[in-house]
Amino acid sequence: MKLKALIFLCLLGVSVYAQNPDSLKVRQLYDYYLTQSHAYANLETLCKTIGGRLSGSPQAAKAVIWAVKAMKEAGADTVFLQPCMVPHWERGKKEVCNLRAPSLSKNLMPLRCIALGNSVGTGPKGLEAKVIEVKSFDELERLGEKQIKGKIVFYNVFFDQSKIRTGNAYGEAVKYRGRGATQAARFGAVAMLVRSMTSVADDEPHTGNMNYDTTVCPIKIPALAISYKAADLLHQSLEKDKQTSIYLETHCRKLPDEPSFNVVGQITGSQKPNEFILTGGHLDSWDNGEGAHDDGAGVVQSIEILAAFKKTGIRPKHSIRAVAFMNEENGLAGGLAYGKWAEEKKEKHLAALETDAGGYTPRGFGVDTTNGLYKLVLSWKTMFSPYMVDRIEPGGGGADISPLEKLGVPCIGFEPDTQRYFDIHHTAADTFDKINKRELELGAAAIGALLYLIDSTYP
Amino acid sequence: MKLKALIFLCLLGVSVYAQNPDSLKVRQLYDYYLTQSHAYANLETLCKTIGGRLSGSPQAAKAVIWAVKAMKEAGADTVFLQPCMVPHWERGKKEVCNLRAPSLSKNLMPLRCIALGNSVGTGPKGLEAKVIEVKSFDELERLGEKQIKGKIVFYNVFFDQSKIRTGNAYGEAVKYRGRGATQAARFGAVAMLVRSMTSVADDEPHTGNMNYDTTVCPIKIPALAISYKAADLLHQSLEKDKQTSIYLETHCRKLPDEPSFNVVGQITGSQKPNEFILTGGHLDSWDNGEGAHDDGAGVVQSIEILAAFKKTGIRPKHSIRAVAFMNEENGLAGGLAYGKWAEEKKEKHLAALETDAGGYTPRGFGVDTTNGLYKLVLSWKTMFSPYMVDRIEPGGGGADISPLEKLGVPCIGFEPDTQRYFDIHHTAADTFDKINKRELELGAAAIGALLYLIDSTYP
Repeated sequence: MKLKALIFLCLLGVSVYAQNPDSLKVRQLYDYYLTQSHAYANLETLCKTIGGRLSGSPQAAKAVIWAVKAMKEAGADTVFLQPCMVPHWERGKKEVCNLRAPSLSKNLMPLRCIALGNSVGTGPKGLEAKVIEVKSFDELERLGEKQIKGKIVFYNVFFDQSKIRTGNAYGEAVKYRGRGATQAARFGAVAMLVRSMTSVADDEPHTGNMNYDTTVCPIKIPALAISYKAADLLHQSLEKDKQTSIYLETHCRKLPDEPSFNVVGQITGSQKPNEFILTGGHLDSWDNGEGAHDDGAGVVQSIEILAAFKKTGIRPKHSIRAVAFMNEENGLAGGLAYGKWAEEKKEKHLAALETDAGGYTPRGFGVDTTNGLYKLVLSWKTMFSPYMVDRIEPGGGGADISPLEKLGVPCIGFEPDTQRYFDIHHTAADTFDKINKRELELGAAAIGALLYLIDSTYP
Repeated sequence: MKLKALIFLCLLGVSVYAQNPDSLKVRQLYDYYLTQSHAYANLETLCKTIGGRLSGSPQAAKAVIWAVKAMKEAGADTVFLQPCMVPHWERGKKEVCNLRAPSLSKNLMPLRCIALGNSVGTGPKGLEAKVIEVKSFDELERLGEKQIKGKIVFYNVFFDQSKIRTGNAYGEAVKYRGRGATQAARFGAVAMLVRSMTSVADDEPHTGNMNYDTTVCPIKIPALAISYKAADLLHQSLEKDKQTSIYLETHCRKLPDEPSFNVVGQITGSQKPNEFILTGGHLDSWDNGEGAHDDGAGVVQSIEILAAFKKTGIRPKHSIRAVAFMNEENGLAGGLAYGKWAEEKKEKHLAALETDAGGYTPRGFGVDTTNGLYKLVLSWKTMFSPYMVDRIEPGGGGADISPLEKLGVPCIGFEPDTQRYFDIHHTAADTFDKINKRELELGAAAIGALLYLIDSTYP
């Protein structure tokens, strides 16, 4: 018996730490992902033949068709679309942001800038005004209408480099992007600029969504991000010269909502086809880059679970769903539609995982602690340890699965290394060449292994 | 008292998990490293003003002068040189490797190649011979003199992508680079080619050192690495056409040994100046790239500890040494010289750490288990956890500190993420632009924190 087992292990080519059937299967999954996965090639197609794919755009529509095809090719038993209405915001012609300061060697200095998603445009006539810099909402409040009226408010808030996880620095700074325009408009500002939320001191402007809270202030002013270096220059100019002004010209506009879709690929469970385990990323991206890390990576990692299970001969007991959510970046229409669908159809979800933190080396998972799942995943820590993805922490999912979380579904956030994500987040530099094949595959493998273990363990 | 302590904590701006003086100091060190460190700027200077710096070259001599200056600027109490004699191998004119196969559309196809360090050259006349492919030393042995004599042996051994830690895949494949020439020469081969040891399927050839074992075979044949893609092409050509031949031309040669130096920068201990804690990387690099990850990163991370301690007001009890070792890549003369120096001067080393695995996000430390240090470092696991560098594993140091290990010094290997290292290892692509500032700094911070804790804990 002992000898037979040994021969069996040797035949499978596994190392000694793989001692139980689940460990063997996890190793087999990793072998698949690291040597046969299509995730990297899929992502190249998505990035290079479609590119940036903002909700409502023709590219987003193409991405839906691509995702259907990719899921079918991955071996899904069923692929279906979930309809949703998405906002349609267009950037239009490239933005202009010219700094004018008597103290500058050149009187007019173009700053690298980008309109924030959902912002109104200045229109072709543009606007020019003096600039007032603030470091916080408190400072804005203190300055008040007297200092702010008629000016462009510049939120010069730095990304806190001392944070270990860059997401925490982002979380602190992003409120100025999201709420800064309305807060500035309250005091009569004519436009708002924000220092890009970035972990690197370069010249790339970072876009991202903003909202107007018309209950606070009915006036909508143009909102842009400027690059880190542009923010430095503007700050220096203001230090020297209070007369510093900026000319802004943006052509963005909002069009009527458009119909769009989540794409869902499923392997139907052999024992409990009506119980679901989900992994998803978002198919839409900002328009300026290729949406490689954000979140093409998450989409191809999710799709790859279909192929991995098929190719390694896993017949899951429960149904496994890969979901390419639409409209995470500026509306969450896809996430909400999925939640509504699940609620209306009374679909039971055992767990839902979101991968939307980039295709970097996996570190672990953040798991919902309000139910049994956290303890369960924690019990697999030693199984994940050889793969170096054993950081199991209290946490949760992402934006797309937050409606499921509200329905009581145990949610999981996939947590890759965060150090490089905000270098390129929401910029023109979020392109396929920033993806490392092994890092992407290791992330996909970690997700595949976790979902396999959930399926295998739950009755 | 409670209130006072709370105010104290708030004044220091620390978060709640930092509860003891050591934790506070570690946080303070991280703040320094992530916001004030010179490691990144230092590395830019080393890579961009000096570049590749193979032992014995004028660039290596310049690097010694640079390291002295950098250590002084970092605030070392003492900087001194340790002499050593290093091999002086020169690549000479660029290598030529032309594939000739009747089945090719073009009769002559240049393959991207690079001579291995220490290899003899073909000289200007070059050599042309048929190629025989082998997958292992066993296969070479089976083919024997009859099949091999007069041919070029091509070791077509793949880097095993299923390994989680790329170092393990490298460890398996590198023996063909190191010993392949002598083994092939035994059977009358006229040259040897090896598939580059790489984790990425690109066209970069990876150099690295090789040795002739004249006790096994007195004949020295030229040895080169070809890129992954070139190896694919050569393999395909051999599949189609056994007449495939290659023309090789290399101009490398060995010159007399040269005098060189380790550079040692020291903060002298306030209580036990004659007891040392060491961190080091190697100053030499291959000549084809800029030696950014290998091992400029380790050198600047080591140097930075001097500045970090000075700037954060740490007065170590024991002497802290940053060492820029010479000649790790092709001889280890610097490491051996340091070991000899320490032995002769009866210097007591409490611990020695080597950082020579790239400037990537830190994961943890491999610590010698043959003494008390492993348990001690393990006891700090929770302290390292918020910094995500808490993978404390049995392990050891690197090549440069191996002579210290033999003297019984507890050794530590710094372990960053390994996924991208062998993409660029020993290639022309190991350049400064591959360095991420935060990743480099986080590595330096982890090393700084660990050495602080060792100093603080040891009597």
